[in-house]
Amino acid sequence: MSGSTFGKIFRITTWGESHGAGIGVVIDGCPAGISLNEEDIQVFLDRRKPGQSKFTTRRSEEDTVEILSGLFEGKTTGTPISLLIRNKDQRSRDYGNIVSMFRPGHADYPFTEKYGIRDYRGGGRSSGRETIGRVAAGAIASKILKELGISLCAYTKAIGPYTIDETMYDYSEIRQNSLYMPNNAIAEQAGQYITSLMKETNSCGGVIECIADGLPAGLGEPVFDKLDALLAQAVMSIGAVKGVEIGDGFRAASSTGLQNNDPFYAENGQVFKKTNHSGGTLGGMSDGSRLILRAAVKPTSSIAIPQQTVNTSHENTEIVIHGRHDPVIVPRAVVVVESMTAITLTDLLLQNMTAKMDYLKQIYTKEF
Amino acid sequence: MSGSTFGKIFRITTWGESHGAGIGVVIDGCPAGISLNEEDIQVFLDRRKPGQSKFTTRRSEEDTVEILSGLFEGKTTGTPISLLIRNKDQRSRDYGNIVSMFRPGHADYPFTEKYGIRDYRGGGRSSGRETIGRVAAGAIASKILKELGISLCAYTKAIGPYTIDETMYDYSEIRQNSLYMPNNAIAEQAGQYITSLMKETNSCGGVIECIADGLPAGLGEPVFDKLDALLAQAVMSIGAVKGVEIGDGFRAASSTGLQNNDPFYAENGQVFKKTNHSGGTLGGMSDGSRLILRAAVKPTSSIAIPQQTVNTSHENTEIVIHGRHDPVIVPRAVVVVESMTAITLTDLLLQNMTAKMDYLKQIYTKEF
Amino acid sequence: MSGSTFGKIFRITTWGESHGAGIGVVIDGCPAGISLNEEDIQVFLDRRKPGQSKFTTRRSEEDTVEILSGLFEGKTTGTPISLLIRNKDQRSRDYGNIVSMFRPGHADYPFTEKYGIRDYRGGGRSSGRETIGRVAAGAIASKILKELGISLCAYTKAIGPYTIDETMYDYSEIRQNSLYMPNNAIAEQAGQYITSLMKETNSCGGVIECIADGLPAGLGEPVFDKLDALLAQAVMSIGAVKGVEIGDGFRAASSTGLQNNDPFYAENGQVFKKTNHSGGTLGGMSDGSRLILRAAVKPTSSIAIPQQTVNTSHENTEIVIHGRHDPVIVPRAVVVVESMTAITLTDLLLQNMTAKMDYLKQIYTKEF
Amino acid sequence: MSGSTFGKIFRITTWGESHGAGIGVVIDGCPAGISLNEEDIQVFLDRRKPGQSKFTTRRSEEDTVEILSGLFEGKTTGTPISLLIRNKDQRSRDYGNIVSMFRPGHADYPFTEKYGIRDYRGGGRSSGRETIGRVAAGAIASKILKELGISLCAYTKAIGPYTIDETMYDYSEIRQNSLYMPNNAIAEQAGQYITSLMKETNSCGGVIECIADGLPAGLGEPVFDKLDALLAQAVMSIGAVKGVEIGDGFRAASSTGLQNNDPFYAENGQVFKKTNHSGGTLGGMSDGSRLILRAAVKPTSSIAIPQQTVNTSHENTEIVIHGRHDPVIVPRAVVVVESMTAITLTDLLLQNMTAKMDYLKQIYTKEF
Repeated sequence: MSGSTFGKIFRITTWGESHGAGIGVVIDGCPAGISLNEEDIQVFLDRRKPGQSKFTTRRSEEDTVEILSGLFEGKTTGTPISLLIRNKDQRSRDYGNIVSMFRPGHADYPFTEKYGIRDYRGGGRSSGRETIGRVAAGAIASKILKELGISLCAYTKAIGPYTIDETMYDYSEIRQNSLYMPNNAIAEQAGQYITSLMKETNSCGGVIECIADGLPAGLGEPVFDKLDALLAQAVMSIGAVKGVEIGDGFRAASSTGLQNNDPFYAENGQVFKKTNHSGGTLGGMSDGSRLILRAAVKPTSSIAIPQQTVNTSHENTEIVIHGRHDPVIVPRAVVVVESMTAITLTDLLLQNMTAKMDYLKQIYTKEF
Repeated sequence: MSGSTFGKIFRITTWGESHGAGIGVVIDGCPAGISLNEEDIQVFLDRRKPGQSKFTTRRSEEDTVEILSGLFEGKTTGTPISLLIRNKDQRSRDYGNIVSMFRPGHADYPFTEKYGIRDYRGGGRSSGRETIGRVAAGAIASKILKELGISLCAYTKAIGPYTIDETMYDYSEIRQNSLYMPNNAIAEQAGQYITSLMKETNSCGGVIECIADGLPAGLGEPVFDKLDALLAQAVMSIGAVKGVEIGDGFRAASSTGLQNNDPFYAENGQVFKKTNHSGGTLGGMSDGSRLILRAAVKPTSSIAIPQQTVNTSHENTEIVIHGRHDPVIVPRAVVVVESMTAITLTDLLLQNMTAKMDYLKQIYTKEF
Repeated sequence: MSGSTFGKIFRITTWGESHGAGIGVVIDGCPAGISLNEEDIQVFLDRRKPGQSKFTTRRSEEDTVEILSGLFEGKTTGTPISLLIRNKDQRSRDYGNIVSMFRPGHADYPFTEKYGIRDYRGGGRSSGRETIGRVAAGAIASKILKELGISLCAYTKAIGPYTIDETMYDYSEIRQNSLYMPNNAIAEQAGQYITSLMKETNSCGGVIECIADGLPAGLGEPVFDKLDALLAQAVMSIGAVKGVEIGDGFRAASSTGLQNNDPFYAENGQVFKKTNHSGGTLGGMSDGSRLILRAAVKPTSSIAIPQQTVNTSHENTEIVIHGRHDPVIVPRAVVVVESMTAITLTDLLLQNMTAKMDYLKQIYTKEF
Repeated sequence: MSGSTFGKIFRITTWGESHGAGIGVVIDGCPAGISLNEEDIQVFLDRRKPGQSKFTTRRSEEDTVEILSGLFEGKTTGTPISLLIRNKDQRSRDYGNIVSMFRPGHADYPFTEKYGIRDYRGGGRSSGRETIGRVAAGAIASKILKELGISLCAYTKAIGPYTIDETMYDYSEIRQNSLYMPNNAIAEQAGQYITSLMKETNSCGGVIECIADGLPAGLGEPVFDKLDALLAQAVMSIGAVKGVEIGDGFRAASSTGLQNNDPFYAENGQVFKKTNHSGGTLGGMSDGSRLILRAAVKPTSSIAIPQQTVNTSHENTEIVIHGRHDPVIVPRAVVVVESMTAITLTDLLLQNMTAKMDYLKQIYTKEF
């Protein structure tokens, strides 16, 4: 059945294959009255486009967005917003052994088993290009969050074994290195690591972290649509993500209650937490402190080293994957994680508007 | 809006508070023709009930299920199955300082912010008792999986710092120790660790692992309802879970493509993988190998050690939480993780039935 | 898949069979802070219960509601509200020829074809008792509407050929006759008509009309979840309803644009319509005038006159249906139509809260 | 929230405004393996395009479809199918009084109230052009139905007061007259009626009927997603439709049980009905006989006769609507009704595949 739609109120439906006519997304349920133009979206798309550094594929993908609907005189109208990004790099070519072999680490085999047919051109729907629709929608969600005073920031916490400890973060350095790491020195080392892997035509993974500030307490819909649960779905649905954690995450498993509980304190009638092991959620709802989530990204599956595999006739064989591939997708995936977080938060902000009768009276009756 | 429903076709809707009349679940979309009785469900509920060992609360909760609808002559009819578990331990009592204070680590504060009203009795809807509905539904999902030759197994991989390495697993020992660990010796050590924490009225967490065998390749609906994405939502929606990973999970982030890719091989026309770093999913779909997921469970938030907090008037104060609480919820949460996995798999098996035209012809036309 | 849930934000999930343990409904997404008690719901249930007049079955169904969750100190908490109505009339009995024959006009045949199994006891899930869950949920929706100044009124417009023209309506008479007609004189004639049919053990149908006043303009979500579209689904989903119309409905088909268009006019800065052929909707949204909908209800299918049919072995036979049946279900269905209308309106009021950015700012920012 | 998506498994999401860049639809959940090309869709679009007769607007709309995704080598792949129809007639123009006035019978007023902003160009999202997305998706649904031996036929039953009785139907004449009526003689009279209204710049409505043959029994998901309930939503969601009925519809309200019940009979082990007052549904499921539904279409709201109305400042004024408008939209809406029926049936065919355990075993186990 359909798995291309995400969100309950702010709903995005993405479509498109790597080497088809284009990639797109329809955003339904976007509130009316938000200023929006192509440039707002382009800024986000440019953050994920290839060819930005020596660590990303040199493929030329311009990824220019066209807004097809939902705008009038520069504002959203409340009707669905359709965004189209034409595929430029669509020339007919020889797809070689990918046509008849299942690439290890890729979706080729289960896709064939599921649908009985597979668009092998550039990975089809399973290509990383699929995330373009997510990022385009994320740009719109981010505009809404910004108008409400909520800010998001995603960055690379680790590349392969090179992890940056929180105590060494300098957020101002994130945009200063091509790996989007909050520490230029470690980024430099990680870059050398990637370079060495590139020589072997091998690849690596990493960890992306995303934080959000300015959230009101109470976002998230217990019990299944909790803030952390929906974030987990949103982020795990990004290809190559193999793990998601909130706050201390897996470290919490080896902690104790006394260590892990964040004490509350009050100041000027407002509630704060002394620590933030919870990563900004309690009981599946935002608790008013900084939201912190992390995603584990596996190494790029496309490597030029010969690998053992089977063909579509289920015979043993060997595959060598040619073509231009990112040695690590983490830097380009940073904006994808940020976008999925923005979409999830926007949807939950809208859902939360119906939580209490007071809100209904505030909107529908004069007396309030 | 509504967050109490999970699943697209096999849909469960849970309800109930800790100290209300009862807890329940409605399962809609369960196929007709499955043999089912109260005992099938009771077996699952008994696995999560308290009082089974010295490491679980001594509260007396019988948790007896009543099937209210959806059955006829011992078989499911395709109509909604309503299950009711009455709360026994419902006596009126003095809820003490919980009434006017926000417990650290609990949902009290965001719940109050969100709804403006909070059922403080035993944690209300945010109590661990909420999971009873999940487990009752999981029992039914498991019956369906079993009829299709799919088996699930969940267990405790770690308690606090006591982690069992895969090489030391003995699945036959899981039910031999009260912590449900696949290694009796480490379970013994972990038990001593819990005992020492209990003396300090402190608590700990752990890691639960769940595996599934016998899955056909192709389960999962790209791109947002991928198998791993829905499992992440399902498991992260369990209170106290702070992280989810599939296969190598966070370890994959520091691996390389060559190490992490699982080579395919063929035997008798069937496709297998030499390794299973992916944990049974590729491109968000099952790949025919064993499904492996892990959940990080935080330490029990209710501890009797004095903690700093604020009251409902947003003034600084101190809280001591009395009552009977599990020093670690991991052993009782094992069946909850297994249940959420079973529900997710069942729903995706049903969704997958509509993936190709061949299936429609198989069911609707004679000629097939 | 699941068809027992209605609504997007205010979501109801009903369950239960005629002769099972009970009937119930879970209302998820009900805003917190609404005063509610069993009596609020009982009043609605009593309007549909049998035995109220000589025109309804003499079955004894007390239909007492129990609120199992979602309330605390007399107010809704924002968590799911579970309502249970035990079946009293559940004695074991001889179901006679219904066991092996398909009753004309009933769901027996398609139910068997669909599910392969059929709960024949009292019609199972296809019984009119299924509507109890709708009415119980409708009572809660009506409380919300009332708090917002919206009032609903449903009544019988026609019984068989006895139709009341709008010009002859006296709303004050609706509760004065057992058919809930807004004209006692025509109700008297209709009653005699029913009496004559009862002598032949035949049955009849009728038309139910429902109006709503006080709706703000703009309710309804184009293009598929328009106000009239969701009302059509809601009302057509009631067993025995064969047609739905809004405003002039089918009469509009033979009108002209000039006749059918309702001219707008302004008074004190407010917008009104001179006529209301549209029945309160324009472009699928409420237009601020009175909402008017009608439902055509077919004659009761259970009649004691011998009818030709087939048995479960697909052989020709004859059936005579015994037991106590309403000669006309219209009077008891009035509150069901009103309830489904109330539920739809409540859900659309909640959905509409997310229509524009101004509303978000109103709720989430102080500066508004 | 979002109202631009219809369907549970076969899900369509439409977007686009009358004078924006284009109109489109994303079909998610379409089974893989169906042959499809642009021509399949173009045939349907051509049936609704204007300028086909003297009774339709002379606007030039070519409405050429482009398939942007979801196809590979001429077959559906199971991924979302995105269809784009560029608006040709998009020249900048003077929108005159429509900018500042609310047209009677149109969505202008509630749209402004709901969203605070209104795309007045050609009616924006409320234009009849919105149905292009429905028809494009309907073409795909119809292909699926055809492969399963299910055929649909829609036609004009009435134009204004000119109604064709069933006894006078000749289906072979439907495509012989420009009104798509199954009786050329009455079509001729109806045509003269329209011509006379055109002279007065007035308009009229009519009734569209749609039938489906070859449906298996059991389609429809009780209790809220019944076949007739979803058809009611689907058809009522088409702009200008004010009423929907199934089978005898409103006539059933004045019938008796004995007349209205359709007796079953068996022939060669198969079950049939002697009559079809029910219009092919029983208990909200298909009963194996012909499906019959009717939609009442109101007269075109855009008329050139001066009408009283208010402006956006809520002052009284008069409006004259210029431009090229259909004097009756019924003939062009025929294919829209057929498309929405096809989409609903396709979705319910897919939903029904999960109704019983036997189907799961048929697809997932070898032994079946």
